[in-house]
Amino acid sequence: MATDILTCTDRISRAVAADDLAEVSALTDPLSPAEVTRVLERLPPKTRAVTFRLLRKDRASIVFDSLDPALRAEIVTGMRSTDVTQLFEELDPDDRVWLLEEMPASVATKLLHGLSPEERRVTDAILGYAPGTAGRRMSPEFVSTHPELTVAQTMLRITARLQDAETVYLLPVLDDGRRVQGVVSMRALLGAPSDTLIGELMREAITVPAGLDEESAARRIATQGILAAPVVDLENRVVGIMTLDDAARIVERAEDEDTARQGGTEPLDRPYLSTPIRALVRTRIVWLLVLAVGATLTVQVLEVFESTIEQVTVLALFVPLLIGIGGNMGNQAATTVTRALALDDVEPRDVLRVFSRELRTGLLLGVLLGALGFVIAGLFYSTMIGLVIGLTLVALCSVAASVGGVMPIIARALKVDPAVFSNPFISTFVDASGLVIYFVIAKVVLGL
Amino acid sequence: MATDILTCTDRISRAVAADDLAEVSALTDPLSPAEVTRVLERLPPKTRAVTFRLLRKDRASIVFDSLDPALRAEIVTGMRSTDVTQLFEELDPDDRVWLLEEMPASVATKLLHGLSPEERRVTDAILGYAPGTAGRRMSPEFVSTHPELTVAQTMLRITARLQDAETVYLLPVLDDGRRVQGVVSMRALLGAPSDTLIGELMREAITVPAGLDEESAARRIATQGILAAPVVDLENRVVGIMTLDDAARIVERAEDEDTARQGGTEPLDRPYLSTPIRALVRTRIVWLLVLAVGATLTVQVLEVFESTIEQVTVLALFVPLLIGIGGNMGNQAATTVTRALALDDVEPRDVLRVFSRELRTGLLLGVLLGALGFVIAGLFYSTMIGLVIGLTLVALCSVAASVGGVMPIIARALKVDPAVFSNPFISTFVDASGLVIYFVIAKVVLGL
Repeated sequence: MATDILTCTDRISRAVAADDLAEVSALTDPLSPAEVTRVLERLPPKTRAVTFRLLRKDRASIVFDSLDPALRAEIVTGMRSTDVTQLFEELDPDDRVWLLEEMPASVATKLLHGLSPEERRVTDAILGYAPGTAGRRMSPEFVSTHPELTVAQTMLRITARLQDAETVYLLPVLDDGRRVQGVVSMRALLGAPSDTLIGELMREAITVPAGLDEESAARRIATQGILAAPVVDLENRVVGIMTLDDAARIVERAEDEDTARQGGTEPLDRPYLSTPIRALVRTRIVWLLVLAVGATLTVQVLEVFESTIEQVTVLALFVPLLIGIGGNMGNQAATTVTRALALDDVEPRDVLRVFSRELRTGLLLGVLLGALGFVIAGLFYSTMIGLVIGLTLVALCSVAASVGGVMPIIARALKVDPAVFSNPFISTFVDASGLVIYFVIAKVVLGL
Repeated sequence: MATDILTCTDRISRAVAADDLAEVSALTDPLSPAEVTRVLERLPPKTRAVTFRLLRKDRASIVFDSLDPALRAEIVTGMRSTDVTQLFEELDPDDRVWLLEEMPASVATKLLHGLSPEERRVTDAILGYAPGTAGRRMSPEFVSTHPELTVAQTMLRITARLQDAETVYLLPVLDDGRRVQGVVSMRALLGAPSDTLIGELMREAITVPAGLDEESAARRIATQGILAAPVVDLENRVVGIMTLDDAARIVERAEDEDTARQGGTEPLDRPYLSTPIRALVRTRIVWLLVLAVGATLTVQVLEVFESTIEQVTVLALFVPLLIGIGGNMGNQAATTVTRALALDDVEPRDVLRVFSRELRTGLLLGVLLGALGFVIAGLFYSTMIGLVIGLTLVALCSVAASVGGVMPIIARALKVDPAVFSNPFISTFVDASGLVIYFVIAKVVLGL
């Protein structure tokens, strides 16, 4: 990011605080729409609203289009009805739905009623699909063609829809029943004689079922690197189109979610610096409470072995190290498998295969670390202590890796977000079982 | 994924094992290229190589194009030179470079020498840029135009390059010195009269400097949702073009890396089920060793307080719970800030602002958890123990959150991957300091 953006943001903040609105306009005018967007993302909410309202009308639309849905919703909430209605009408139907999902129900209803009948109809087409599905993220505005039309006829269809079609670069090829027979690209059309039949040019279509969850749909498009995919119903009839840029945005939001939950938080819905402290607290408190409740299990386990600790206090010294390694092992396995599930490299029915691989991986790592632990603990304390540490590491790593690898799959089978499910459960289970393993081995080896 | 893909993969595995090559061909023939790709991703290396070589020549190219660079490299290593040379020649220049980066140097040199002079020239244009930069990921094959050309003249340029240009849907508009003046879309061209000057149609270009790291470049394109961006040198002269589909692939690889490192592992370079056990072990062992070394610090800290534990053994019961909460707090903060850094929502110069926000967040959470801990520990043990637990949680959460939030920024400033740097350091620092805080508070409150 150019240094002048950061400086600019500061100067705008000060100008707004000083009520110097002319200065604010002077600062935003020379910026490109992309730069204005970055500036708005870094401002606190009230300043952002003021700055947005001071933009020239033509630039305001472009900038609005580039903002996250959450920020759009925030800005809209503070605006006059007439201004909002126009902005709303100008949005593409799929962007409109993103925005509606961020608004309180009353505001959303008002906005929908303010639409022209044509735009209302188009928007309702999308709203008919369940939230979180491909149907909700598609655009119903696309150009299609037929295998028996010619290139020339297809180009006419395209030029008629240039203003409103979501994309004109990839066209679904439909039969008389609107079923998808294939797709044809603009590039293919431009390279063929005008009387060529589409049926000879088209290639196999990669489609997306309208009921498929938005993340799988988006990843399918992004992984294949296709510009767009027809969205189809259960009879393979086309209902809309999902483009690569929307897929990339959906994947980014899904990554935000996965990354956040893997780290034990809820995702932020707006850029970090514009998130108020109480929102940061809210995204973390739930996980911490779940973890704290689970961790009381470790207190109870240690209570069972309290007399053992009294007898051989040196055992307490290794507790953080052992549960640290165990927790990390479980985390590593869960991270790898969760990512593989997200990319469709692993399916729930692979659970036994995953368990076996993680068990072997954990065993190998446990033996390596256990050998190291035996030597070092043996050197600094005693051979018996070294033996306890070594054996514990072997057992602990094997358990941690196999449990950690399997948790995300169980979560997916229960239709719960694997990242949500895994983290606290793995910590709790691995910590508690790790302590049990440790002290049982200690009692056996040391004859307590 | 359709059940028949999974069944198909099993049947192909068995057919290869039984040397029934006719059966393998019979199984792959009815699959679409996309389905063949999924099957190949799930097979072990030798089976994959055999299956690929049995594909029909025309399908082999398409499938090869869809595979991850790592899998392409694997397949190529086992093939005869003549077959490889042809596959290599047919790849787009930017895909060729991806593949070269995965190969051992000797094989890469051989492959380059096997190229036709024209393709060699084009490939060298990309290889001139440092690995990991936008220049390495761009395509030098694009169509450009000039502000004083007409729509008709531009369309002629496009049709001449339909076969080899990376994209024809977004054209850089260059002045006489090849400097980028703007971009024009195919859609705009189709909608304007043939004699319109490009200068009237073009809009502002979002460009990417060739020296920019590939992840920032890719995110810029993906976040803006543009189909392509001209790649420029320091004088704003165009050197290539980066398209949205390549940007999406780069972002996915970057996510693989970030996700893996956040979980304490190195990323896998191929799908999970095709990764051998020793590779899984290799991606995790480094982190575990770093963690283990850091964790010996906790052993030493506890050794200092060993007499305190002997006096009041009940203190040992809470150690896993406290460091679990502390570690999680640090992790949450680091996760959030690392993600914000990746999305350019936070810059290194924001470090004080981030520190302040995380300190306040940690303090608030510490007070909430500390109150809960005080009440519960006080109920089950004693008021004094409850006080120790409560105060420790307040102090620990504040320290953990602020340190956790700042570590990624320090990493970024040191030009180290924030996810790599943060995880082990945070665990070690937070665990060790958490124990010190705990026992110091215990000694003070309990008068030991």
